[in-house]
Amino acid sequence: MKRKILITNDDGIYSSGIIASYQALKDMGEIYIVAPAVQRSGVGRSISLMEPVRVSEVVLNTEDRIRGYAVDGTPADSVLIAVHEIIGEVPDLVVSGINLGENVSTEAVLTSGTVGAAFEAATHGSMTVAISLEVSMKDKFADMFDFMNRAGEMDYSLCIDVLRNLAKILLERGFPVGVDVLNVNIPSKWNGKVAFTRLAKRLYLTRIDTRKDPRGRIYYWLDGDEVEDDEEGTDLHALRRGYISITPLSLDNTSKESLESVKRWFYEIC
Amino acid sequence: MKRKILITNDDGIYSSGIIASYQALKDMGEIYIVAPAVQRSGVGRSISLMEPVRVSEVVLNTEDRIRGYAVDGTPADSVLIAVHEIIGEVPDLVVSGINLGENVSTEAVLTSGTVGAAFEAATHGSMTVAISLEVSMKDKFADMFDFMNRAGEMDYSLCIDVLRNLAKILLERGFPVGVDVLNVNIPSKWNGKVAFTRLAKRLYLTRIDTRKDPRGRIYYWLDGDEVEDDEEGTDLHALRRGYISITPLSLDNTSKESLESVKRWFYEIC
Repeated sequence: MKRKILITNDDGIYSSGIIASYQALKDMGEIYIVAPAVQRSGVGRSISLMEPVRVSEVVLNTEDRIRGYAVDGTPADSVLIAVHEIIGEVPDLVVSGINLGENVSTEAVLTSGTVGAAFEAATHGSMTVAISLEVSMKDKFADMFDFMNRAGEMDYSLCIDVLRNLAKILLERGFPVGVDVLNVNIPSKWNGKVAFTRLAKRLYLTRIDTRKDPRGRIYYWLDGDEVEDDEEGTDLHALRRGYISITPLSLDNTSKESLESVKRWFYEIC
Repeated sequence: MKRKILITNDDGIYSSGIIASYQALKDMGEIYIVAPAVQRSGVGRSISLMEPVRVSEVVLNTEDRIRGYAVDGTPADSVLIAVHEIIGEVPDLVVSGINLGENVSTEAVLTSGTVGAAFEAATHGSMTVAISLEVSMKDKFADMFDFMNRAGEMDYSLCIDVLRNLAKILLERGFPVGVDVLNVNIPSKWNGKVAFTRLAKRLYLTRIDTRKDPRGRIYYWLDGDEVEDDEEGTDLHALRRGYISITPLSLDNTSKESLESVKRWFYEIC
């Protein structure tokens, strides 16, 4: 029986990263591409509760007849629609990406739509990989607004190699025990090595950019500068030094090691 | 020096739960209320990257002269705006809630705006409590659309007692080590006891409700039935049995215990 593989992202269904994932995975099973109709970065694992969701079948590449489904919703919505309506079952493997722009640190993991979609898929029991390519913000937004011209320019070759090898291993051997999502970040300039990492705590020092509209009313842009560096062993540290970074993620934010100490802390006080 | 306390939520600034938190905390420091202008449930720790954010000062209760700031954005946006623009520094304590409706399980923690705001605050270094009240969905949505009439009907008395006691302990003794957020759920009918819990894996078995619009085009509502029950030790299990559930949460989704085994798994294969 052919393996079922779902590809999704948060850059929107027309991002060139979707086609790169397709190129990596096309020979490994039945491929479904289901992703937000437009860019939905920063939405984490948001799901649409307050509004209905629509879906349209779209042609992504006429040459190779690649078709996909554009979801008028979030990345996590896309996974839910794919599982329940389009595939009709839980896929064997879900790949979220290739995201244009890294997803490193606890901040990215909790706000990234790429990782949010991966968490949603992992909850359903799929083997799940989130994969992101380190690019400059300039490249990222250029790609979003001018993707057709730029799709050929972005160099996904290392991403495609890594994703193909990883997917092959996972489909043959299964997922490592105790892991819900493998979060993979590909450096813009590879040093030839792979690092298994933990999440850095922060990536940005947030900042607010205050402006006035033409009617003189204040509005804000959320912004931030990247933190200078980070300690050894983290995804941020590894990626900036040219390593492919692989971080095993858990869905469970329970602070397990402090559960007992919290009990003691509470009962000593009360 | 007076302690600075931020109250936020994801039910929107006009939810009666905000006033309940204010009643619990008003004598403990300088209170700031900053929350989304409208209900933003299910948005997790989303931040607004693609659109600017506006803020309006609003009067929440003329009798007690309670004022707040309505943010045209997400709960996490509200925390960022509060820290950088309204308070101008990191508050000592951030309370997200009282949310109308429980926030239990890994699903809720990764999708809840209540917990999302708490994660954002914890990243800045505040002591942070997310607090939610078990209510029926009917009550929850009635409150949103008819809050002025219903605010007096919702019984927040236990929430207020718990929050007041917990905040007092935290401001005197500091936050338990190794914890980023305390996720507190208050049962609709209390059994008189407190349970320290881990997150249940799931809360809902998701389902899609397919409909046709007046023009015959299909659209979807994301929906789900609650899982039957859960194993002992989880927040879901405790809450359903009438316990106040307190779960220590970590911002860090690294699957620490499997990091070494993933390395071995990978190198054995490659």
